Amino acid sequence: MRTGVWLVGARGSVATTSIVGALALRAGLTGPTGCVTELPELRGPALPSFADLVFGGHDPVATPLAKRADALAAAGVLPARLVAALGAELAAVDHEVRPAPADGSQADRAAAVVADLTAFRDRHRLDRVVVVNVSATEPAAPPHPAHTDPDALAAALAGPDEVLPASSLYAYAAFTAGCPYVDFTPSTGARLPALETLAARHGLPYAGHDGKTGETLVKSVLAPMFAMRHLTVRSWSGANLLGGGDGANLADPDANAAKVRSKDRLLGEILGYVPQGHTRIDYVEDLGDFKTAWDLVTFAGFLGTPMRMEFTWHGCDSALAAPLVLDLARLTAAAHAAGRRGPLADLAFFFKDPLAAPTHSLAEQWDRLARFTAALHAEHGGAA
Amino acid sequence: MRTGVWLVGARGSVATTSIVGALALRAGLTGPTGCVTELPELRGPALPSFADLVFGGHDPVATPLAKRADALAAAGVLPARLVAALGAELAAVDHEVRPAPADGSQADRAAAVVADLTAFRDRHRLDRVVVVNVSATEPAAPPHPAHTDPDALAAALAGPDEVLPASSLYAYAAFTAGCPYVDFTPSTGARLPALETLAARHGLPYAGHDGKTGETLVKSVLAPMFAMRHLTVRSWSGANLLGGGDGANLADPDANAAKVRSKDRLLGEILGYVPQGHTRIDYVEDLGDFKTAWDLVTFAGFLGTPMRMEFTWHGCDSALAAPLVLDLARLTAAAHAAGRRGPLADLAFFFKDPLAAPTHSLAEQWDRLARFTAALHAEHGGAA
Amino acid sequence: MRTGVWLVGARGSVATTSIVGALALRAGLTGPTGCVTELPELRGPALPSFADLVFGGHDPVATPLAKRADALAAAGVLPARLVAALGAELAAVDHEVRPAPADGSQADRAAAVVADLTAFRDRHRLDRVVVVNVSATEPAAPPHPAHTDPDALAAALAGPDEVLPASSLYAYAAFTAGCPYVDFTPSTGARLPALETLAARHGLPYAGHDGKTGETLVKSVLAPMFAMRHLTVRSWSGANLLGGGDGANLADPDANAAKVRSKDRLLGEILGYVPQGHTRIDYVEDLGDFKTAWDLVTFAGFLGTPMRMEFTWHGCDSALAAPLVLDLARLTAAAHAAGRRGPLADLAFFFKDPLAAPTHSLAEQWDRLARFTAALHAEHGGAA
Amino acid sequence: MRTGVWLVGARGSVATTSIVGALALRAGLTGPTGCVTELPELRGPALPSFADLVFGGHDPVATPLAKRADALAAAGVLPARLVAALGAELAAVDHEVRPAPADGSQADRAAAVVADLTAFRDRHRLDRVVVVNVSATEPAAPPHPAHTDPDALAAALAGPDEVLPASSLYAYAAFTAGCPYVDFTPSTGARLPALETLAARHGLPYAGHDGKTGETLVKSVLAPMFAMRHLTVRSWSGANLLGGGDGANLADPDANAAKVRSKDRLLGEILGYVPQGHTRIDYVEDLGDFKTAWDLVTFAGFLGTPMRMEFTWHGCDSALAAPLVLDLARLTAAAHAAGRRGPLADLAFFFKDPLAAPTHSLAEQWDRLARFTAALHAEHGGAA
Ligand SMILES: NC(=O)c1ccc[n+]([C@@H]2O[C@H](COP(=O)([O-])OP(=O)(O)OC[C@H]3O[C@@H](n4cnc5c(N)ncnc54)[C@H](O)[C@@H]3O)[C@@H](O)[C@H]2O)c1
Ligand SMILES: NC(=O)c1ccc[n+]([C@@H]2O[C@H](COP(=O)([O-])OP(=O)(O)OC[C@H]3O[C@@H](n4cnc5c(N)ncnc54)[C@H](O)[C@@H]3O)[C@@H](O)[C@H]2O)c1
Ligand SMILES: NC(=O)c1ccc[n+]([C@@H]2O[C@H](COP(=O)([O-])OP(=O)(O)OC[C@H]3O[C@@H](n4cnc5c(N)ncnc54)[C@H](O)[C@@H]3O)[C@@H](O)[C@H]2O)c1
Ligand SMILES: NC(=O)c1ccc[n+]([C@@H]2O[C@H](COP(=O)([O-])OP(=O)(O)OC[C@H]3O[C@@H](n4cnc5c(N)ncnc54)[C@H](O)[C@@H]3O)[C@@H](O)[C@H]2O)c1
Ligand code: NA
Ligand code: NA
Repeated sequence: MRTGVWLVGARGSVATTSIVGALALRAGLTGPTGCVTELPELRGPALPSFADLVFGGHDPVATPLAKRADALAAAGVLPARLVAALGAELAAVDHEVRPAPADGSQADRAAAVVADLTAFRDRHRLDRVVVVNVSATEPAAPPHPAHTDPDALAAALAGPDEVLPASSLYAYAAFTAGCPYVDFTPSTGARLPALETLAARHGLPYAGHDGKTGETLVKSVLAPMFAMRHLTVRSWSGANLLGGGDGANLADPDANAAKVRSKDRLLGEILGYVPQGHTRIDYVEDLGDFKTAWDLVTFAGFLGTPMRMEFTWHGCDSALAAPLVLDLARLTAAAHAAGRRGPLADLAFFFKDPLAAPTHSLAEQWDRLARFTAALHAEHGGAA
Repeated sequence: MRTGVWLVGARGSVATTSIVGALALRAGLTGPTGCVTELPELRGPALPSFADLVFGGHDPVATPLAKRADALAAAGVLPARLVAALGAELAAVDHEVRPAPADGSQADRAAAVVADLTAFRDRHRLDRVVVVNVSATEPAAPPHPAHTDPDALAAALAGPDEVLPASSLYAYAAFTAGCPYVDFTPSTGARLPALETLAARHGLPYAGHDGKTGETLVKSVLAPMFAMRHLTVRSWSGANLLGGGDGANLADPDANAAKVRSKDRLLGEILGYVPQGHTRIDYVEDLGDFKTAWDLVTFAGFLGTPMRMEFTWHGCDSALAAPLVLDLARLTAAAHAAGRRGPLADLAFFFKDPLAAPTHSLAEQWDRLARFTAALHAEHGGAA
Repeated sequence: MRTGVWLVGARGSVATTSIVGALALRAGLTGPTGCVTELPELRGPALPSFADLVFGGHDPVATPLAKRADALAAAGVLPARLVAALGAELAAVDHEVRPAPADGSQADRAAAVVADLTAFRDRHRLDRVVVVNVSATEPAAPPHPAHTDPDALAAALAGPDEVLPASSLYAYAAFTAGCPYVDFTPSTGARLPALETLAARHGLPYAGHDGKTGETLVKSVLAPMFAMRHLTVRSWSGANLLGGGDGANLADPDANAAKVRSKDRLLGEILGYVPQGHTRIDYVEDLGDFKTAWDLVTFAGFLGTPMRMEFTWHGCDSALAAPLVLDLARLTAAAHAAGRRGPLADLAFFFKDPLAAPTHSLAEQWDRLARFTAALHAEHGGAA
Repeated sequence: MRTGVWLVGARGSVATTSIVGALALRAGLTGPTGCVTELPELRGPALPSFADLVFGGHDPVATPLAKRADALAAAGVLPARLVAALGAELAAVDHEVRPAPADGSQADRAAAVVADLTAFRDRHRLDRVVVVNVSATEPAAPPHPAHTDPDALAAALAGPDEVLPASSLYAYAAFTAGCPYVDFTPSTGARLPALETLAARHGLPYAGHDGKTGETLVKSVLAPMFAMRHLTVRSWSGANLLGGGDGANLADPDANAAKVRSKDRLLGEILGYVPQGHTRIDYVEDLGDFKTAWDLVTFAGFLGTPMRMEFTWHGCDSALAAPLVLDLARLTAAAHAAGRRGPLADLAFFFKDPLAAPTHSLAEQWDRLARFTAALHAEHGGAA
């Protein structure tokens, strides 16, 4: 099952780490640490292998992937020896990264994306292409009347307005080109009625939002712990310090607000009430691609006794995100092959702010993911 | 369903907090925070109500419960107003706390315990008495040939040797008196073949070991998180600082070793390998009934990138333990009423070192507990 | 040396804790923990004794001190037994707390404060009255042309404008009444040219700004450590979570900004460069009078090796501040008695943002304080 | 002033980092971050320049320095580009590292060390050689009657006994060869009456013990902070996790005990009382040359209010130690040149367990160091 993975933001940290990692796995130079789909509970025949994956993407920036990879190696994100060993393979992927279309109406730009996707699929004789958005987080998009209906949307895109934020324009183009779409960012992406209808028309699955890699991952197991023990969480405060491209982008208050909102939903839904406290994101250039999150939880036990817990998470965001990008591409490709359509709620395990949010508890999300994957394997086996 | 709760170590911190809490709940002076069996998912008709519980127990120490409770209030464990309001009720329980039998052969002491249990059950016309061990942690017990067989055991107890550690002698007496037995401590308790056979002969359920209240509770959700994400835990180190009676007792190296062993099993079983690192327990008198645990976890992600997490847990051990003691008494009473027998593996949720350890993942333990409780309620409903 | 201590904000947490503590010390009910002036290195004859101190003050709020003290006892700030034992003494101080003047022009209000101060001094036959501002932090004050000259200021105050922020109006009144003034808050206080001239005219000393009690105290020893070791601090980020009245007030963005500015000066001055990073203050009601500060410091060592340090401070702000308020009142009274005038730079030890900031290193501040106090004692001894 | 730096343990992590760093400084490839003697307050003409330093040493291990340096680069301790650039220079130093003498009586071994030192000094026409012990920490040495007198010692060394631990045998040889001696480890070194007398006879200065690089450095500023604020430290507990060669060595309980003792003296001396709590050192291989220390301090403020502070230090031990080794070599050489003799108490700034311990407060140690260095520069200027 030859599968295209088209990365929007293909020269960013997450994308570069995903590409280097997949190439290294294919070459047998590394193991699948961090790849959830390689766990015994999920592994199986329905998923394309790493060797089946072909990478391409869009990015406005032109820095060669090998140069980005060198920088990530210097920052301790990638092993320098891997980057050195994969020079030729990285150069090959470089040819498949197109400049992000920037001219003409939004309809023109969408058409250019569709053309890029179609040409990529044809050129490599791919069974399908999964589009994954790993570009910079956008500010929350302003509403527009054409957001509710695909036909109104098509008409509006041809006009002079910026009708859609970039993430949604990519989703529009992906669906138009018959490609499933995954949003790894908190941006709007496919979350507009017009796009949901469009995906349905084309019978396409999609997934999102916002890869769950650090503080929220920990929250998704700690909050259920407090709930299962009937302990009352009085406050939950978080400080997130991060450098890197994503950190610089989040220094913009609007992007920051979008990210915080995406992080904040979880507690209320798991606990059944919203504890006091705030989540902050601050840019600290010196941290590079690493993120330090510190959380303080105050809680009350039996007879109201006050207690507290704090944790510090010091993670490399790109190294945490990249294997999930590969997992999502493989799972979404398999879902598409199996005829799944609409929002893939069973992939909630991977997201801070999951579509159709069935649950925010990691353990429950895991159970759903395991059942979902088992079904794909069973169907695939049946079909084989 | 009038249910006796017989606490071994009835004047200790955990016992006193359990008793004050149950009396306060019965009087409507407090809510059930921390009581797992009061969560909507577990609540139901099969469990005795708080008003159904009658307390008694053994302790070598004679300090009145009200005095212990005052000390716990001064230490911030209990609200002073509750202790003040419950003076009469506490005095009533005081009459049901017997000195721990200390004279004669172990057979004589076991007989004295049986007599106390039987008299208590009769005096209060109780449907059953659940014996819960919350006494000081013992050093690991030396093996003895009579540990494998109930008849050999009965014979040996009549002799001059200290054949059984105290926790096991209480289990022996409990089973002999027809009482289910719960071990909230890491001590040997019912974990001897002779006692398991004895419980089977009497058709009795039992549960244990070592209430899971702090660092291990957190581990039981964090370790599965690393496992579900296919992240490699390189090391996991823990420093536990605690004061209070339990802390003083654990300053004894042998008791400490028993406790650490009980804490250490979890990681290997959840992760499938044993990471580097040590767990330490140190006595720091100034911490009183609070415990501070600090854990450092180093882990490797995609392509081997090294990352780290640390957490500090600052919990009031008795306030965390007491509602679980009530939960265990209620659940074990209901299990007994429903004819369950043998080790209650479905209560693993409550223990650091669960009997018949089906799993150490808190989420999976929760699922088992929920199914177990639902079955009890369903049977009870059917019977009603 | 009978000394009045006039607290602006006399019913707040810091003021109430100061009063209860001084009364308890006088009554021999507690020891001088936290009182710097009771250390062997500083103690001596020039300072008024605790028994010499007489309390009064202004506050717009009318809650009796005993009620505020009860609330602080419930919150774990004050021992309940002390509050109970000091009922009569607290009621006596209550009579000396006046409503904050609120009517008329600012000149009228200043005159009312002068009258209150003078009457208090006379009524109690005090040698002097030290005015200490412990009221809520103000937003930064807008500039006004009359701020540069005392005569222009006197004229402007008689007009309809709010020429001075409250803290400065109190400083104006204090100086007019011949009283030294201490600002324990980050508010403007005496920091206006007109007020500095006024203090000089009256030959009065004054001190400030912003009592150093938590994160900044720690910074004032850690930053010199990095400097003395020639380690390069790359970033220093701080998250401050606090409840209580001060916390609620700081939830106001302007007051917050004033406080953060006052905290931020230190690093640049000690290190000689400003590292990356931000200081945040967030209100978390559940923390009550306690504050949790978390700081992350990243630094580079030999050959650029990156390292990191983090600390969590969990302090009771009022309990840390109150003994310093007493120290400052005693030291400022002694300085006044010894004829010191102008800004007391030697009291920098006590402040986040010291007047005439000679140094921010705590150890150097300590040396200055010790020399300053020794001189006062020596002169006093000579005079005796 | 051509100065030899003779490193006992010359192939260890600290030694290798010191050598690479000095060579890089000499070649202008790096800056003096971490070098205290390069601060404006200490810099000056009395100290040998980096270009004046010539390295040699003893080690039983034969691994070439370049190989050790490569390993340290892979572990993130040294920048790989520095190691690559300094290949020739490292090979040159390699020729000056001799196998640690292992045969014959202790007198024979001492004579071999003396011969190595003398030949090194002559071969390079050095003004002097400073011997610095950076070898593995020894267990505490058993007492021996010959430890009190140099002549008895000389006699005993010729016999078959292991009279001196290795660190002391090196000190003996250094003094015999007319070389000042610095002990960067907690081992016995020069701390025996016989050796002190010997140093005095030869008019030699010496310094030690145990370089202060992590937890203890932080303690030496935090403990004075609590003392200066008259806050009562109730408990101070520390967990030290470290990998690397030093960590593996400290896994040995006896070496561990020596190290803990050396760390524990400080608190009692700064605070005037010994708080509760323990210091633990645990080996965690995965941490490599980095050390994570976690400390919990509980303290009481005004009216006894309980508070707490914790810190985590994550430092690269070798990168912290190496510049201090260079500082100590330069300062001790200058002291020798200036005719200082006996224990250099003014170098306490550098040590966990300083000789003639004048004070443990870092700020006071800094003041002494600055005065000491200023005097050396002044004398040197006078002499020039
Ligand atoms: N790393 C994580 O752990 C993590 C977790 C969840 C979500 N995310 C999200 O993933 C995204 C990428 O993160 P990153 O660290 O790689 O950021 P990055 O800044 O390194 O990369 C973003 C890339 O997107 C490109 N880009 C910007 N606008 C674009 C456009 N219109 N079309 C195509 N490309 C565009 C940029 O040129 C850049 O190369 C962010 O939105 C981040 O919030 C990351
Ligand atoms: N508090 C927690 O979070 C927690 C969690 C898990 C397990 N535990 C275990 O619970 C037990 C009780 O803890 P605690 O804090 O109440 O300790 P504690 O020291 O306050 O109380 C123990 C009591 O047991 C009594 N005792 C000692 N020997 C006895 C005997 N032979 N027969 C009857 N009573 C005896 C003592 O007199 C004392 O009153 C400990 O074993 C502890 O390890 C506690
Ligand atoms: N607690 C600390 O550690 C600490 C440290 C440094 C500075 N401070 C400063 O001390 C001040 C007091 O802190 P707190 O915790 O007691 O706050 P609080 O809110 O408990 O008390 C402030 C009091 O000031 C009174 N007030 C408000 N406006 C006034 C006015 N115009 N005239 C007179 N009184 C007025 C309020 O009614 C209140 O009673 C704050 O400015 C705080 O920033 C406190
Ligand atoms: N790194 C720090 O921050 C720091 C701080 C204070 C003290 N120290 C001390 O410095 C010493 C060195 O630390 P390290 O990390 O370099 O350890 P390491 O294990 O890397 O190096 C020790 C070296 O000493 C050598 N050695 C052992 N016995 C010897 C002998 N008899 N003669 C000569 N050499 C011998 C070993 O072969 C090894 O090469 C330790 O004692 C440590 O406790 C280190
Ligand atoms: Na921490
Ligand atoms: Na912490």
